[in-house]
Amino acid sequence: MSVFSHQNAVMFQHCDPAGIVFYPRYFEMINAVVETFFDRAVGWSFAQMHSVERVGVPMGRIAVDFHAASRLGDVLDWTLEVTRLGGASCDLEIRGACGREARLTVTGTLVLVDLDRMTSLRWPRERRANLQRYMEGAA
Amino acid sequence: MSVFSHQNAVMFQHCDPAGIVFYPRYFEMINAVVETFFDRAVGWSFAQMHSVERVGVPMGRIAVDFHAASRLGDVLDWTLEVTRLGGASCDLEIRGACGREARLTVTGTLVLVDLDRMTSLRWPRERRANLQRYMEGAA
Amino acid sequence: MSVFSHQNAVMFQHCDPAGIVFYPRYFEMINAVVETFFDRAVGWSFAQMHSVERVGVPMGRIAVDFHAASRLGDVLDWTLEVTRLGGASCDLEIRGACGREARLTVTGTLVLVDLDRMTSLRWPRERRANLQRYMEGAA
Amino acid sequence: MSVFSHQNAVMFQHCDPAGIVFYPRYFEMINAVVETFFDRAVGWSFAQMHSVERVGVPMGRIAVDFHAASRLGDVLDWTLEVTRLGGASCDLEIRGACGREARLTVTGTLVLVDLDRMTSLRWPRERRANLQRYMEGAA
Repeated sequence: MSVFSHQNAVMFQHCDPAGIVFYPRYFEMINAVVETFFDRAVGWSFAQMHSVERVGVPMGRIAVDFHAASRLGDVLDWTLEVTRLGGASCDLEIRGACGREARLTVTGTLVLVDLDRMTSLRWPRERRANLQRYMEGAA
Repeated sequence: MSVFSHQNAVMFQHCDPAGIVFYPRYFEMINAVVETFFDRAVGWSFAQMHSVERVGVPMGRIAVDFHAASRLGDVLDWTLEVTRLGGASCDLEIRGACGREARLTVTGTLVLVDLDRMTSLRWPRERRANLQRYMEGAA
Repeated sequence: MSVFSHQNAVMFQHCDPAGIVFYPRYFEMINAVVETFFDRAVGWSFAQMHSVERVGVPMGRIAVDFHAASRLGDVLDWTLEVTRLGGASCDLEIRGACGREARLTVTGTLVLVDLDRMTSLRWPRERRANLQRYMEGAA
Repeated sequence: MSVFSHQNAVMFQHCDPAGIVFYPRYFEMINAVVETFFDRAVGWSFAQMHSVERVGVPMGRIAVDFHAASRLGDVLDWTLEVTRLGGASCDLEIRGACGREARLTVTGTLVLVDLDRMTSLRWPRERRANLQRYMEGAA
């Protein structure tokens, strides 16, 4: 089993008048983690998906626990694991930390959809195999 | 019991290359619903809270179910109810719909915090009474 | 000659750690002014333009002078005038103020484009007539 | 003379329903270029400036020419030069390109301000010397 990891700095654009990350900006970061995961780990860039194949992976459900605030200049370490792989969907667990301090834990369900019909699609065999490598219990 | 309601149009800035609302933008809308609720229903504007009293109401947890996509030009009707009122926290249920179609359901927990110390604070009595009016079962 | 006007409140999502509007957020507001102008004054909603007719009005050039900072809770009054109307383009002057205090002055050039070919298009006659009403010197 | 360079990918969050970068998102990128320049080239991080020294470098004026659209997956190469260095201000020229194609040219004026008083401040001697290295004609 592999764990996908990614990193980003907390920039000025992410912070609110309290000097901490404004939580909607975390969802942009979470989307960037997923986008980078699909690009690098699954081998399926969002450009290829959206612009060429006309498919997307919108979130059907997302839940986030915020454990501690993040501040300007913090470097966030993200990990992503696949916790369930359905025919047309995929559950993810994404964790954000700064050093040894947990900042947020995300659970979400992605669905593969045909963007023109907005109907779900089964994972192509090769993409599915790539996703499976990031699932706990995977060989 | 009162239900707080609010409305916003889906603007160009909210939409992604698939022509639907990019989900991090929903969280900006959700924050605006909460900010407007505090201003109009609780009588406690974010300007007063942040700039004068140095308190805030960050989300401790948020979960969202996305039922159907929203498109450019849709008008979203939001409702907000208080589902639990703790000493220093508050559970909310927020629903977004377009016409008769449910678009998303949000459950979240806000915590009242002292922004300088980042410690939780008990709701002031009058603010608490205002929040209570939006709680199910309230007289 | 008509002047188009529009209003928005400075919300939490617009403000930076200094407690003032983060300037990229002004461009979202400016875009919303233009989008609302096209919808209400020109009679051509962005939904109609983008989703149905596959045309858009991207900025070719924009320049902004920031006169004074805006803060959480400020209400911004916007005005928009057409200063030049070309065959496929249009110069705008947009001013944002809070009460009697000027906050920013924007000059920009929009171009009407075919989104599929990314080539410029001449203004349709009726749309052009509507734009002209907001031009100085117009009858 | 040194030219500061920086790079970022066009991510899903930057793109609009036309599939191209939504121009307010360019200003977030421009701000990130400036923020990274101050951190790495001037040796003055925004965290240090804002959270510790209570100073900032807001834009007083910014003008952007958009030469060609950027799409999902494009990698943007940014360069930044100082074109004028005043007592409390600084003119910048920032260029964004993708491969050999120019995408946008930015000219802007930053002002060093005391965040608590919102008054301008003279550049500290060492910071000024660092800025000067990125000015044309500098030794």
